[in-house]
Amino acid sequence: LLREELNHLSLSEMLDLWQEMGEDEAMEIFLLLQLDQKVELITHLSEAEQEWLLKSLSLEKIRELLDEIEPDDLADIIQAVSHDVRSSVWKSLSEEARRETQFLLKFDSDDAAGLMTPRYIALRSNITVEQAIHFIRQGVDDIETIYYVYVVDQLQRIQGVISLREILFSNNSEVIGSKMSTNVISVQEDTDQEEVARILEDYDFIALPVTDRYNRLLGIITFDDVIDVIREEQTEDIYKMGAMDGSSDIYLETGIFRLLKKRIPWLILLLLTGTITTNVLALTDDILSAAAFLVLFIPVITQTGGNSGTQSSTLMIRGIAMGHVDFADIGKVVLKEFLVGVFMGVILGGVIILRSVYLPPGIAWYEGLVIGLSLIFVVLFSTIIGAVAPLLIHKLGWDPTVIAAPLMSTVIDVTGLSIYTFTAKMLLGL
Amino acid sequence: LLREELNHLSLSEMLDLWQEMGEDEAMEIFLLLQLDQKVELITHLSEAEQEWLLKSLSLEKIRELLDEIEPDDLADIIQAVSHDVRSSVWKSLSEEARRETQFLLKFDSDDAAGLMTPRYIALRSNITVEQAIHFIRQGVDDIETIYYVYVVDQLQRIQGVISLREILFSNNSEVIGSKMSTNVISVQEDTDQEEVARILEDYDFIALPVTDRYNRLLGIITFDDVIDVIREEQTEDIYKMGAMDGSSDIYLETGIFRLLKKRIPWLILLLLTGTITTNVLALTDDILSAAAFLVLFIPVITQTGGNSGTQSSTLMIRGIAMGHVDFADIGKVVLKEFLVGVFMGVILGGVIILRSVYLPPGIAWYEGLVIGLSLIFVVLFSTIIGAVAPLLIHKLGWDPTVIAAPLMSTVIDVTGLSIYTFTAKMLLGL
Ligand SMILES: [Mg+2]
Ligand SMILES: [Mg+2]
Ligand SMILES: [Mg+2]
Ligand SMILES: [Mg+2]
Ligand SMILES: [Mg+2]
Ligand SMILES: [Mg+2]
Ligand SMILES: [Mg+2]
Ligand SMILES: [Mg+2]
Ligand SMILES: [Mg+2]
Ligand SMILES: [Mg+2]
Ligand SMILES: [Mg+2]
Ligand SMILES: [Mg+2]
Ligand SMILES: [Mg+2]
Repeated sequence: LLREELNHLSLSEMLDLWQEMGEDEAMEIFLLLQLDQKVELITHLSEAEQEWLLKSLSLEKIRELLDEIEPDDLADIIQAVSHDVRSSVWKSLSEEARRETQFLLKFDSDDAAGLMTPRYIALRSNITVEQAIHFIRQGVDDIETIYYVYVVDQLQRIQGVISLREILFSNNSEVIGSKMSTNVISVQEDTDQEEVARILEDYDFIALPVTDRYNRLLGIITFDDVIDVIREEQTEDIYKMGAMDGSSDIYLETGIFRLLKKRIPWLILLLLTGTITTNVLALTDDILSAAAFLVLFIPVITQTGGNSGTQSSTLMIRGIAMGHVDFADIGKVVLKEFLVGVFMGVILGGVIILRSVYLPPGIAWYEGLVIGLSLIFVVLFSTIIGAVAPLLIHKLGWDPTVIAAPLMSTVIDVTGLSIYTFTAKMLLGL
Repeated sequence: LLREELNHLSLSEMLDLWQEMGEDEAMEIFLLLQLDQKVELITHLSEAEQEWLLKSLSLEKIRELLDEIEPDDLADIIQAVSHDVRSSVWKSLSEEARRETQFLLKFDSDDAAGLMTPRYIALRSNITVEQAIHFIRQGVDDIETIYYVYVVDQLQRIQGVISLREILFSNNSEVIGSKMSTNVISVQEDTDQEEVARILEDYDFIALPVTDRYNRLLGIITFDDVIDVIREEQTEDIYKMGAMDGSSDIYLETGIFRLLKKRIPWLILLLLTGTITTNVLALTDDILSAAAFLVLFIPVITQTGGNSGTQSSTLMIRGIAMGHVDFADIGKVVLKEFLVGVFMGVILGGVIILRSVYLPPGIAWYEGLVIGLSLIFVVLFSTIIGAVAPLLIHKLGWDPTVIAAPLMSTVIDVTGLSIYTFTAKMLLGL
C-alpha cells in the first residue's frame, strides 16, 4: 500500500486493515497514517490494543498523538492502560491537558461527569449575536461541538443555552440573553449514565450540560458518547441475561481465565440452586416408580415452564428498562399474564397430549391427560412468576436483569417439578 | 394546573402527566399546550395513543399540528395509524407535505431511506463561504439540521460535504468546493438500518446522507433517529433471545391475543423439539430403571448444559452483532471454548459430586462419580455447540439471535440427555 492510499482510508477501512495485520506490519502502517487518522484509530481500538500501541510508540510520538486527542477520550485511555503505560502517557501530556485530564479523572466513569468534555463554548448573556458569531469564528478550534452555546454568569453558573442555529437565525444586533432558552435541561455530575442517555434521547439534543450542585457548568456530554453508553449498557444487559458477569469485554481479546471468572460463578450458583430438583424428585420417588411414564416427561415439563417464564420475565425486564412498566402496574400485569398463561397452557397441554399419545413413546390416553393437565398448571404458574419476579426485584431497588432466563428457569425447575408430581399424584390417586 | 405552568412543561413532564390522566383530562390538557409542545408530545406517544389522539382531534387542529411535524416523523405516524385516521390525516396535509410524505412512504421503514428526511441544505461547490453563511442565515427554517451542508451538482449527485463548523472557521472569500471533504461517507437507500447505525456510530456524525444508485442525494438521516433504531433493534434482539417474536410493542398496550401470537408459536416449536427428550429417555428406559439415582439428576444435567450453552451462544451473538467476531474466527473460538469448557466442566463436576454425596439425597461415591463425569462431558459439549451454532447460522445468512437461549437449551436437552445416559451406561457397565 502506498502512503497516498493510506491517507485516504476511512475509519472502518483502517480498523479492518488493523485486524488483518501482524504486530510489526500494523505498527509500520500506523506510523504512515496522518495525525488525525492516528487519533481516530487509537480512540477506536480495544483497551488491549491501546495498551500495546502506547507501549510500542516512542515518547515523542505519544506526545504528538496525545496533543490531538479530546480530553474525554484521553481520560478513557488513561483509565484503560496499565500503570507503566499510564506514567509514560502522563509524562507526555502538556500542562493544560494534564490539568484537564486530572479534573476528569476525579469522576466515576459510569456517571455523567465521566462522559463529559470540559471543552465547550460559554458566553455571557449581554453579548450580541454578531459578537457571538465573531467569537465562535475565531479561536475555538479545540471545542468538541460549537453547535450549542452555553450562557454562564461570573460564578460559572449556567443561565441559559442557545443553539448555533438559533444564533444564526437571529439578527446581528440582538442580545444572546434575549434569545437563549432559560429552561436548561442539564444533568448533575453524579447522574447515572443510563439516565443521561434517556434524557439526551428524549430531547434529541446534540449535547447535554453537566453541572455541580451549585448549578455551575462543569462540561458537556455529546451524543456520540451517549451512543457508546447505550451500546455498552446493552452488552451488559445481554450478558447478564445470558447468565454472565456484565462487563463488556471483546471476546477474542479476553483470556481463558477472565472468561472463566465471568462465567463459572453463575454456573455454580445455578447448579447449586438447581440441585434442589434432586431433592424434589427424591421425595416423590414413590410416585415416579408407581407411574414410570412420568419420568419421560421431566425435561419437557421443566423446559416448557422455563420458556414461558423466560418470555414473561423478558417482557418485564425490557419494559422496566424502557420505562414503560413498573411495580405500580402489577395488578394489570398479573391479570394479563393470567389470561395469556391460561390460553398458552391449554394450547400447549393439548399439543403434548396429541404428540405423546399418537407418536412414540405412545403413552395411554389417561397418561397423556395427566401430562397435559400438569403442563397447564406449570405454564400458568411460570408465566405469572416470570412476570412478577422482575417487578418485585426492581421495586426492591435491584437490577431485574439478573433474574432473567437462567435464574428464572432454575427457580421454575424446582417449583415446576413439584407442581408436576403433585398434580400427577392427585390425578392418578397415588 | 394553569396554562402558564403547562407552557413550561418539558417533554418528560408532559409524558408523565399524560400517563397519569384519563382520556378527557388528557385531551383538555393537550389543547392547552403550545403548538411546539403538541408536536413534541405526539411524536413521542405510542402508536395506540397517536391513533386515539388523531381520532379525537378536529380536522382543523390536525392540520395545524401536521404542518409543524418533520416529514420523517409524519411518515412514521401515517404508517402507524389505522386506515380511517390515515385518510383524515392525509386530507389535512398541505400539498408540499403530501408530496414529501408520499416520497418517504415509498421506502421500506427498515431501510436507510425509511429513516431520512428530505429537508437538508444542499449548495453548489462554486459559492463562497460568505454566500453560504448568508444563505443559511436566511430562509432555511424547515431544515432538520443546518450543521452539515451537502454539495451537489446539477443532477443532484453528491460531490462533497462540509460541516457548518468548517464553514465558519473558513475565510469569507473562500469557495465551498475548496474546503469541502470529497470523500463523502454515505449510505444507499436500501442499506439496512442496523448498518446505518454502525456507520454513523463509527464516524460520530450528526447526520448521514442517503443516496440512490446514481449517487443522487435523496435525504439525510440524523443521529436522533439512529439512536431510536439502536433502541428498537436492542428490544428486538432481547425479545428474540427470550423466545418471542421480535416486534417491539409496548407491553401494557398490547392486547392478550397479540401477546399470545408473539409467544405461542415459539413455545409450540420448542415443546415439539423438546419432546424428543421423551424418546431419548424411553430408549434408555433399562438404564434408568437399573440405576434409579440417575433419574434424580435429569433436571440438573439439562439445566446446567443449557446454562453453559447459553453463555457461549450469548457471547457469540453479541460479538457478531458488534462486529467483533465472525465465522473466520471459528478455529480460535472452538479452541478457547474447549479450554474454558474443560475447566468449567471439571469444576462443576466436582461441585455436583460433593453436593450430592454429602447432602441429601446423599448418593454413593461411585454414583456421584458417574454424575460428575457425565456433567463434564455435557458442559464441554454444550459450551462448544453453543459457540459454534451462532457462527454457523450467521455464516448461512440467518439471524443468529434466534438460536439464543431457549432453542439452544432445547437442542442441548436432547443431546445432553443422550450423553448423560450413554456415559452412565459405560461407567456402570450396563
Ligand atoms: Mg470518558
Ligand atoms: Mg453511578
Ligand atoms: Mg429521541
Ligand atoms: Mg465527547
Ligand atoms: Mg467521543
Ligand atoms: Mg444497566
Ligand atoms: Mg451501568
Ligand atoms: Mg432489522
Ligand atoms: Mg421513519
Ligand atoms: Mg462513536
Ligand atoms: Mg430525523
Ligand atoms: Mg426524529
Ligand atoms: Mg436485529
